[in-house]
Amino acid sequence: MSRRGDDGRIALRHGAGGPAMRALVSSLFARGAPRELPGGGIGLGALDDGAALRVGDRWLVFTTDGHVVDPPFFPGGDIGRLAVCGAVNDLAMMGATEVLGLSLCVMLEEGHPREQIERIQASIEAACREAETRVLCGDTKVLGRGDLDGVVLSSAAIGFVRKGRAPVRDCTLRPGDEILVSGTVGDHGMAVMARRHELACGPEEELRSDVAPLNGLVEAALAAGGESVVAMKDPTRGGVASALAEMATKSGVGILLEEEQLPVRPAVRAACELLGVDPLQVANEGKALFGVRPEQSDAVLAALHAHTLGKHARRIGRCLAEHAGSLILDTGFGRRLVQEADGELLPRIC
Amino acid sequence: MSRRGDDGRIALRHGAGGPAMRALVSSLFARGAPRELPGGGIGLGALDDGAALRVGDRWLVFTTDGHVVDPPFFPGGDIGRLAVCGAVNDLAMMGATEVLGLSLCVMLEEGHPREQIERIQASIEAACREAETRVLCGDTKVLGRGDLDGVVLSSAAIGFVRKGRAPVRDCTLRPGDEILVSGTVGDHGMAVMARRHELACGPEEELRSDVAPLNGLVEAALAAGGESVVAMKDPTRGGVASALAEMATKSGVGILLEEEQLPVRPAVRAACELLGVDPLQVANEGKALFGVRPEQSDAVLAALHAHTLGKHARRIGRCLAEHAGSLILDTGFGRRLVQEADGELLPRIC
Repeated sequence: MSRRGDDGRIALRHGAGGPAMRALVSSLFARGAPRELPGGGIGLGALDDGAALRVGDRWLVFTTDGHVVDPPFFPGGDIGRLAVCGAVNDLAMMGATEVLGLSLCVMLEEGHPREQIERIQASIEAACREAETRVLCGDTKVLGRGDLDGVVLSSAAIGFVRKGRAPVRDCTLRPGDEILVSGTVGDHGMAVMARRHELACGPEEELRSDVAPLNGLVEAALAAGGESVVAMKDPTRGGVASALAEMATKSGVGILLEEEQLPVRPAVRAACELLGVDPLQVANEGKALFGVRPEQSDAVLAALHAHTLGKHARRIGRCLAEHAGSLILDTGFGRRLVQEADGELLPRIC
Repeated sequence: MSRRGDDGRIALRHGAGGPAMRALVSSLFARGAPRELPGGGIGLGALDDGAALRVGDRWLVFTTDGHVVDPPFFPGGDIGRLAVCGAVNDLAMMGATEVLGLSLCVMLEEGHPREQIERIQASIEAACREAETRVLCGDTKVLGRGDLDGVVLSSAAIGFVRKGRAPVRDCTLRPGDEILVSGTVGDHGMAVMARRHELACGPEEELRSDVAPLNGLVEAALAAGGESVVAMKDPTRGGVASALAEMATKSGVGILLEEEQLPVRPAVRAACELLGVDPLQVANEGKALFGVRPEQSDAVLAALHAHTLGKHARRIGRCLAEHAGSLILDTGFGRRLVQEADGELLPRIC
């Protein structure tokens, strides 16, 4: 039997947001790509949430995101809302809170009901209003019956970092920095899984996707914390575990998480237990992780609490000089290493 | 029996680049979207090749393109080359010849051979070198077996119009303007169709896709013609017929084409006859149509002829005050109205 990944074929885990995906991207799609662009910009080789280019006296950020969620409608959102928020949030994680606009590429299967596309479009429009942006350009492709399961979208976005600020990276944590999360963990992934498997884990309002545009929340955090907000990432595929593992590895620090501080809704915890999944490995679509210098973390936390999307924000951990690249969970009874998911746990979750 | 398009389901022709697609886009994806953006920019509602935004003293253009070609490898190119050229050419058609970079979203079917993706990636890198640009950001998604036929890509691009110039539109033709095409017509579509149906129409080198990045060619045309180059469009899906019909409709002019002037390779003509297809309706991926004020058309034509990708450029028609929105073919024996294709002629051609 061949080892996992050695059979020369693409596997679901190559899209799962964890180590297999990062290995595919760095050995193939980003091979030879520069980390730094002329003028100090951020290139594909940096494998950050997007690229940053100097334009005049400002930083322009450019990001893209594909959306293949199954089912396309789920409690709390749909693939259209996801397409807008995914691109807007990637911009926001680089500090680009002034969204210039989005592109949207729609790929449809022949025979798909137009009524579904109407609902998705209405959702795109509503999410754009929330994010105070708009779709600027698009493309439509139709594939024959059986060539595509329903509908997939891809979006890209461009936006500016506010004048006088620099882009925010994911590789600049240092020991002592504190880790904040903007709210409850695991909501999106468990809402989609529950809908897919028709799980009942309490009332539906308890198991809803958190999909939301974070540019406003991030602007509030940056306004409060300034340059003390040194790193950001949205914990989508692969969840908080993958996002923090990536930040820890790139920054050369360890990250110690306090389990008791981790906000998880009871229904999400119940669904996770039913499916044998760690909430840390579950996708979020409306949450941000912040790495903040300790002297400003109270101010940033207060700014998050004052925002509608940050009411449940928490300080969940801190960076260590030891255990570089590792994520360690303090359970209250002891410490254990958190592993990233690297399997076919949740295909087509976003 | 329901009328075509009245059954509330997406059909292949909704992605064919003709009237059905334009109707779907304007009634759904672009409904309510402004044609003009604040500051005089070009918005989604203009349904041009991309959007244009004022950034400082320059115009930034943003475009996107989906790529679903079947088969993914064809004589003269592959889906990777298509993804780079599609986005670069949409920028170029707006006058943005200074390409800042591309985004690339890759969607793969589980089980797809990695070796194919390696070949596609090598082709992306080569096309980027030709276009003097690079991929700046990306995303990778994997769908389960049977959820997607192989591989689809979507790209977006950002670029600047050269300082002091304005974006080039597709709606500003006026009677007397001349229409130039940068080379032979129908090469891409017929190469893909021949490969798909294993047609033999002469040596393979005669039936090759023209897929190529046009930013260099367009820069040469704009340098020669300046503001006399009043309109551009690349005749992709729907071919020259759809591109010129759209330009004629938006500009409120008629366009008279001279059939004898239309450059068509003998092998392409033979394949078209075999399949009963009009070369005017066949997709191109490395050709541009220019609308030029008559006093500068010789200069622009000379500039095209001097470029590797413009050796077979021709003056193929001119704009009329009458027959607004129509494309008329002068066959040498008489005149006839050219209809756009609006069927399932060539699904997944790009």
